[in-house]
Amino acid sequence: MKLVAGAAWLLLTALAGPAAAQGARPGGGSAPLAVREIGSMHVGGRVAAVEGLPERETVFSPGAPPLRVAPNGRFHVEQMYALFVKLEAPRARYPLLLWPGGLTGATWETTPDGRPGWQMFFLRAGHDVYVSDAVERGRSGWARFPEVFAGEPVFRTVGEGWALFRIGERSEWDDDAARRVPFPGGRFPIAHWDRFAKQSAPRWTTTDRQIQAAYDAIVQAVCPCVVMAQSQGGNFAFTAALNALDKVRAVIAVEPSGTPGADAQAARVGGVPHSVVWGDRIAEDPFWSRIRGNVERWQERVRAAGGGADTLDLPAAGVTGNSHMLMMDNNSDDAASRVQRWMEAEGLMRD
Amino acid sequence: MKLVAGAAWLLLTALAGPAAAQGARPGGGSAPLAVREIGSMHVGGRVAAVEGLPERETVFSPGAPPLRVAPNGRFHVEQMYALFVKLEAPRARYPLLLWPGGLTGATWETTPDGRPGWQMFFLRAGHDVYVSDAVERGRSGWARFPEVFAGEPVFRTVGEGWALFRIGERSEWDDDAARRVPFPGGRFPIAHWDRFAKQSAPRWTTTDRQIQAAYDAIVQAVCPCVVMAQSQGGNFAFTAALNALDKVRAVIAVEPSGTPGADAQAARVGGVPHSVVWGDRIAEDPFWSRIRGNVERWQERVRAAGGGADTLDLPAAGVTGNSHMLMMDNNSDDAASRVQRWMEAEGLMRD
Repeated sequence: MKLVAGAAWLLLTALAGPAAAQGARPGGGSAPLAVREIGSMHVGGRVAAVEGLPERETVFSPGAPPLRVAPNGRFHVEQMYALFVKLEAPRARYPLLLWPGGLTGATWETTPDGRPGWQMFFLRAGHDVYVSDAVERGRSGWARFPEVFAGEPVFRTVGEGWALFRIGERSEWDDDAARRVPFPGGRFPIAHWDRFAKQSAPRWTTTDRQIQAAYDAIVQAVCPCVVMAQSQGGNFAFTAALNALDKVRAVIAVEPSGTPGADAQAARVGGVPHSVVWGDRIAEDPFWSRIRGNVERWQERVRAAGGGADTLDLPAAGVTGNSHMLMMDNNSDDAASRVQRWMEAEGLMRD
Repeated sequence: MKLVAGAAWLLLTALAGPAAAQGARPGGGSAPLAVREIGSMHVGGRVAAVEGLPERETVFSPGAPPLRVAPNGRFHVEQMYALFVKLEAPRARYPLLLWPGGLTGATWETTPDGRPGWQMFFLRAGHDVYVSDAVERGRSGWARFPEVFAGEPVFRTVGEGWALFRIGERSEWDDDAARRVPFPGGRFPIAHWDRFAKQSAPRWTTTDRQIQAAYDAIVQAVCPCVVMAQSQGGNFAFTAALNALDKVRAVIAVEPSGTPGADAQAARVGGVPHSVVWGDRIAEDPFWSRIRGNVERWQERVRAAGGGADTLDLPAAGVTGNSHMLMMDNNSDDAASRVQRWMEAEGLMRD
């Protein structure tokens, strides 16, 4: 029976850890994933009016007659997209919501060198998985600026992530791929940098309030749940827990780049277990050291209030070389297995 | 054995048609879908240089230190995203590529009233499915304008699709949902119009060449395949077949809004079976009548060259009330089943 084989695999994974998990990946002879439904949803947002702009005629497809396009009118803005995969028999108690950082949900779907991403890993581990795009990125869509979104979008250069994501020294970035020298022992698949660069999405830096509101709407629509977020998504996840203490049953923040601001807030989230995951070379990097310091202060406040705020420091656990994009690194399954074991230990899986 | 039950379901669907297909949908007691892998890919595009814009500092997350953002530099642009779901044992001979019209790939993933979309239908029918976003929409990302993309993006109002997609008379659109009167017998789920409006994505009208190049890249990466496209996607699908006669084994164009321009081209595509699907109320609509006329002339040229260019005219088949967005209408599974039967008849499924 295929389902029995799948259950046995899950048990093996839980017991044996990362090595078993990696051996059982797609292509590795594992049982098929038993899926109940795949689909997507848009939630949240509002209707905004735009006025005072001139009309014009536009041809949308070659050969089609021109259409009058009215730039003015009422537009749906600030909504959020999530792709879901629901399993036939999830082993997790709650769906797992995956929130990206400054890129789109594709962050979770695949690695630059084409291995299955954390979406597939956590599906195989028994979670229903919802992958979101932040407001104004990916399938969430974006709105006219400056009429609806304040300011202008920011575009990431091909090389910006090299130093920012701790893959190599800034001075070692080179437009010529053959001349790029990463940190020794680095785990990011730099041979496929161009595929990673293709995931870049324009973003605003003025839309935190709107993004938070939409994540809160996803939580209301889907949860109780576990939220796992990376980088910019970390602060949204911490705050989503504060905004829905009855709905968010755990927060896993992978290299979170921010925290909620007000100290007094931390005491409220004491009942929600948190885990923060860090890769390598943070101490050597002033930018990330400062971020980590902020996050650790947040964790201390949560702990002082009686809450659980664990840290999975990969180098401290003997796993070196991980970048900011650790779900894409060449040991991505190992890191995911460690997160999965934390969820097991927190009682987030069915027995 | 779950896989045997799944295979039996597929056989029943093929034999019994739309009624059996609808009864076996998720929630209807069908066997789980046996999935080998879920993931995504970005293909195509190029690196473009932007020069001469001023630098500035930007805070990306609350509490994070400001970063210097360089608007100038080399950017990856014009790439294309596709989400894939690969089955454990596909019954289709080739993967099925789903290309949306002016919205994103979410078009295929769900219906506005929350039923499973055509992505799920064709997965259940035994196809590996790849859902793309056009260049500059959704997870494909977009580029700085006017430096990289010519012109400005177009934004769809909440109500624009009402008349354009033949859901009701233009005069019957009302900002108050309770006062909207659709065409009699119309099948679009207008009670969930807001969820549909949330799928809107800004788009350009100057990027056909770039979109075509990226679709051609997807074809080279994934095919041999069958391409199914809607609306604006139709012309890209017709052209993709011309550009890869050895790779595109069939084209299914759902309400295509355009065709390749040059008459001489049609003779080349004679070996690739085409099916064009139309909903209701086209004869009453001058805009869509003109489009359909263009498409029928294209089909005539393909047929004159000895090719197969079938038409699935839903009203002529006794199925009335379908809109331009027929994969979202309340009989979406029925229409999908008819497309599936065409693929069966064309020998595109394994015996």
